[in-house]
Parts: sequence; structure tokens; C-alpha cells
Amino acid sequence: MNALFRLVTNEVGIIRDSFDTISSLVSEGTFHISKDGVKLVAIDPSNVAMVIFNLFSIAFSEYEVKEETPITVNIEQLVKVLKRAKASDQIVFQLDESKSRLMIQMLGTVKRYFSIPLIGTVESETKVPEFDRKFTTKIELDAEILEDSIKDAEMISDSLTFEATKDKFVLYASGDSSEVRTELTRDSPSLISLDVSESSRAKYSIEYLSKAIKAAKIADTLIIQFKTDFPIRLDFKAVDKLQISFIIAPRVD
Amino acid sequence: MNALFRLVTNEVGIIRDSFDTISSLVSEGTFHISKDGVKLVAIDPSNVAMVIFNLFSIAFSEYEVKEETPITVNIEQLVKVLKRAKASDQIVFQLDESKSRLMIQMLGTVKRYFSIPLIGTVESETKVPEFDRKFTTKIELDAEILEDSIKDAEMISDSLTFEATKDKFVLYASGDSSEVRTELTRDSPSLISLDVSESSRAKYSIEYLSKAIKAAKIADTLIIQFKTDFPIRLDFKAVDKLQISFIIAPRVD
Amino acid sequence: MNALFRLVTNEVGIIRDSFDTISSLVSEGTFHISKDGVKLVAIDPSNVAMVIFNLFSIAFSEYEVKEETPITVNIEQLVKVLKRAKASDQIVFQLDESKSRLMIQMLGTVKRYFSIPLIGTVESETKVPEFDRKFTTKIELDAEILEDSIKDAEMISDSLTFEATKDKFVLYASGDSSEVRTELTRDSPSLISLDVSESSRAKYSIEYLSKAIKAAKIADTLIIQFKTDFPIRLDFKAVDKLQISFIIAPRVD
Repeated sequence: MNALFRLVTNEVGIIRDSFDTISSLVSEGTFHISKDGVKLVAIDPSNVAMVIFNLFSIAFSEYEVKEETPITVNIEQLVKVLKRAKASDQIVFQLDESKSRLMIQMLGTVKRYFSIPLIGTVESETKVPEFDRKFTTKIELDAEILEDSIKDAEMISDSLTFEATKDKFVLYASGDSSEVRTELTRDSPSLISLDVSESSRAKYSIEYLSKAIKAAKIADTLIIQFKTDFPIRLDFKAVDKLQISFIIAPRVD
Repeated sequence: MNALFRLVTNEVGIIRDSFDTISSLVSEGTFHISKDGVKLVAIDPSNVAMVIFNLFSIAFSEYEVKEETPITVNIEQLVKVLKRAKASDQIVFQLDESKSRLMIQMLGTVKRYFSIPLIGTVESETKVPEFDRKFTTKIELDAEILEDSIKDAEMISDSLTFEATKDKFVLYASGDSSEVRTELTRDSPSLISLDVSESSRAKYSIEYLSKAIKAAKIADTLIIQFKTDFPIRLDFKAVDKLQISFIIAPRVD
Repeated sequence: MNALFRLVTNEVGIIRDSFDTISSLVSEGTFHISKDGVKLVAIDPSNVAMVIFNLFSIAFSEYEVKEETPITVNIEQLVKVLKRAKASDQIVFQLDESKSRLMIQMLGTVKRYFSIPLIGTVESETKVPEFDRKFTTKIELDAEILEDSIKDAEMISDSLTFEATKDKFVLYASGDSSEVRTELTRDSPSLISLDVSESSRAKYSIEYLSKAIKAAKIADTLIIQFKTDFPIRLDFKAVDKLQISFIIAPRVD
């Protein structure tokens, strides 16, 4: 087959989980497949959150790309297909340009072939905002902590407030007259690092945080960056293999 | 904090499960917190069943009560919070009178704080009827047996009949033309004791029995007391820690 | 009890699972209980699929049949009762003719008795068509392969095409512009045998295949027989104990 690219991987779990995470924010997306890896930047339809996905070429056992190719697919459909893979399968992604379809082979004791249609790309390329120097707080912690705080908070509210001072990182929510609060001090074993150049407090939508935190499945630790009444950035990394980041707009009362 | 009470426990499981059982019968309730323990007596809105809950002070690792305090809360809300505890957490219940809220701390590798509002107590105190000498049958058995009989019976009926003679305890239900029947004789290993002063038969609502039997999670054995066309009393005990009892009105045709 | 038959078994799992499979196709059915075993042949209400069920007498530890007896029951009701059995129970089926009910005892540490009504038999006996010599393809394979192909295909289509040539067995489906395809060659370890007297291709309803494949629970391997634009026959055998077969009509465009 005269394929524009041919990518082979055994990382069934993290590929399925990361695409699944993306699909909770965007239903269609354009993947850019270059020599370095597979990249997607997309904004959710209500313009509140951006997802930045990088799957490094090293996550593949074979990685052949003839020329940089953007492919747009229905991500929910892609996830449905990937959920049919067995953990021990080898997955081959291939683009047969003539057919205008993404071909997905699952090779185990049985050979299974799937193909899904490409969608005409209409979107202009989405740029990632360069926020990094603006953030006043950078925290590394067990992703599970944020996961728990989100679940605690969603019992009573639709937003979660992040607050950081030099010595403490606090997550809280209040609703009706109930309150929920998680406190992490420098000596908490779950707090890996806390860099605060300026005390910061901001509030974000639980709906979007819940979607982003699904990425905790692929990463143990999480880097959080935010600033008072400013977007938050969440970086989930599976070492050497992939990174999924989210930027979520703040809620200002 | 100038708290009216401060109760500390590691018994996450049985506290969560017993409150969960109560919440299936009553959505709001008044807990009486005294030197001896935490007590609640409540009647379900349709007046068919009474729940009597006693959590002994010995179930707590720290138990400080300044003065006997009644607190009324939404039990469903309390259960939602307790379900967020991890099995290894230490839970602290505290009443900060000035705030008119029940404070719940979950202390594990992370400190989490929850608070729920108190509800103005309007109810007069509910008295437990003194039925004990009136019952003609007293049975101790594996709680699982009643649990299975209830599930068997609910396939075909909305009531379950209890029948005891000197030598036999029978549970049965019939509906359309299907029938379900469980028989326990004195030699059944699941029947611990059977005291029958007078042959008894009575029928109770499966809806209420199903709610009560959730307490089987906290107790292995169960004491059943009843009498012909008279209420039934079910006692579930987790030794030294707590007791949950239910009194359910009979159905008379 | 003067019972017309009395069948005792410890095979709780396969009996429950096989009756459950039947119930997805037919809600009522007539079982013929003879010296050899329990047999049922039934056609689903829309006339697309036939199920042929044989439970051999050897699957029972006691098997007494006074005279050949047809009994018609609501199979969904029977399955509901069987799902109440514990894996370690001994199950006794008995017909007390005078009562016109099927009696089912579950004997474990507790004795439980169930009875369900017989339904008046109105149907004439259903004959199994003698297709065996007409099929042009006979395949034995791991039942799991067909199970996976059905699940793959149901993402995108409501039919699955079976295609066999001398050296290859292919299952495929297409919908909108997505495609799914499973290929098995003679060297696939999951393909036990492949006998093709004539290349064959036919398409069957995924709805009915899905119902039939539930029988994979009771059998590891599966025999498939079909012919171009002709019915398919699927045979699931649990050695010595029972066989469930399905005949499903083809879809012709």
C-alpha cells in the first residue's frame, strides 16, 4: 500500500485512554502527523477549554511519515474503534490517501481491520497561547488529589477555587451552606513542589476540570499552573510517550 | 475551636454503611449526642417503619461531648459526604455552634474538610414502643438468609410472610401463580436460635424489609421478633460499636 | 410427591446461562422431557431465528422421567428464578401434575422452594429443517472470535457478512464510510477447521447474531455452517452436557 504514514504501536492502553480524554472535550479534531510525533490542538465548542495533545514518535515501535499530514476525524468514532483493541494487540495506523480513510489494524491472534472516514478539514490552525511566564503559581502533585477534590466539590457546587500561598495549596468549593475544602502544606507527601511568586486565587468550572482530569489515567503526577482570575494550565505526562495539557478559562464573578 | 462536641473515628466503613441504611428510610433526622453515644429514632414519612440507631461512644477513638446536643441534618447529604472518605481516613465530627454547621474532617495523606448545614429541629422526640414482652417469636439467624428471601420474594410479590412454629421458621410469598418459600428447621446451620411461645404468622411489606435489610452490611447475625398480625422488630448489631433496629408495621388483609 | 419427573443437578452455571440465552430469543417455550434429556425447539416471534436446545440427561445427577412430558413455561420467569440459585446449590426440578406447576427446589445450607405456573401448550411441534447436507461451508473456531466480530460490527452496521473461500474465513461489515473486517487464514490458531466445498458469502442480522452469541458462555468452540444467501447454523456444545444451536435466516439485498 502506498501509505502517507504508517505508525505501529503496542501502547494500546495509553493511546485509548488519552484519545478518550480528548473526546470528552472535542468531538472532531485535526491530528498533525510529523516526523516528531502526532499533535493535536483543539478548543471545545463553547470556547472555555483548550486541549493540547502530543504523542511522541518514541511511543511507536515503527514510525514512518512520508510527509507531514493533517488528518481530521471524528474522535468519538476513533475512540469507539480503539476500545475494541485487546491489551495485547499491536495497532497499525495507516493513511491510504486514495481512499481518504484512516486504516486501523489490530493484530493479535486474529487480524482485524477497521477504517474510518476522514473529514474535510476546515479549521484554521489553533495556536497555543504563550502563558508560561505569566503564571504566578506552579504546583506539582499527585493527580489523584485533584481528582478527589473535584469529586468532593461536585457534590455541592459547579466550580472549584484554587488558592496558593507561599506555604499552602488549598482547593475549595461552597454551595448552599455546605462547604468542601482540601489543604496541602509543604509537608504533605502528595505535594511534590510548590512555587508561588505571588499569592493566587482563581475559580474554574467543575464541568471542564472533570473532563480534563480523566487524563490522570495516563499520568501519576500533574503540573498545575495558574494566576489570580487567569486561565489554569494542567499538564499530564506519561514519560517519553505522551503529554496532554489543558488550558481552562477562569470564572470571574 | 470551641466545639460542643468532637468525635474521632477510624470506622469509616460501618459508619458510612449504617448512615446509608438510615437514609433509605428517612431523609432528615435528629441525632442526639450524649456521653454514651450517638442516638437517632425516626419514623419514615408514610408511618410504616421506625428506625432506631445507636452508635456507641466506644466506636470512637476520641469522644468529647460538652453537653448533650441534638443536631438535625439532611441524612442523604451526610451520606454523600461520608462516601467521599477513604477506608484509611480518620474522620472527625465537630459542631461549631457559632457556625450552625456540622464540620467533618477526613484526615489521610491529605486533609479534607467538609461542612454541612444544621436544619432547625422541629420534631418532638420520637419514643420507641415497648413491644419486647409482647412478641411471641424470637429468632436469631444469619442476616443473609433474610436478605435472600427478600430478593426471592420481590420477583413475584410486594409482601413477605413470616411464619414460626416450635420447630420451623418459614418465609414465603406468592404472586399470580408463582410461589417462593424458604424453610429453616432447628438443624439448619443458619438458624442460631428459635424461641416460639405461640405459633405466629404475619406479613410485611417487601419495600420496607428491603430498606431495613441493607443493615446486613454491618452485622452478620440478626434478631427477628414478631407476633401474628403485629409489628416485626429487626435488630442488627455490630458488636460494641453500633446497633440498628427497625420496627415495621404488619400488613393485614 | 407423585411427580411426573424429577431432575436433580449441580450444574447451576450452565443451566442458568443456557436458559438465559434462549430467553433472549423466545419468551415462552415448550420443553420436551424424555428419557434422553430435555429438548426445546422454538422460533422467535419475527420468524428470523430458530433455537434448538438439548440438555442431556447426563447433565443431571438424578434423572427420573415417568413418561415423556411437554411443559410450557414463561422462560423469562424461569430465568429470573434460576438467577436466585447459588453456585453451590443443588437444583431439583419436579412436575406435580395436580398442581400444574413446575416446582424448583434450591438446596444449599438453606432449603428454598420456588414454583412457576405452566402455560397451556397451544403450539404444534416445531421441526428442525434438515439443512446439514446443503451447507457449503463448515467452520470450527473459538467462539470468542465471532463474539468480537459481532461487537466490532455493531459499532457501524446492523448486519455482518460471512465469507469463506478454500483458505480464508472473513467477517466484515460496513456502514456510512467506516468498515470493519476480521480475517482468519488456515494458520490462525483460533481457526480449528475450515471446510469449504464452494466459496460462500451471506449476510445476517447483528441483532440475532448478538442474541445467539450469548451461548458462547457455555462453550469454548463453535461450529458455523452456511451457504451463499442461505441460513446460517451455529452450534455451541458443552461436552456431554448440552448443545444450543441457532439457525438464522440470511439478509438478501
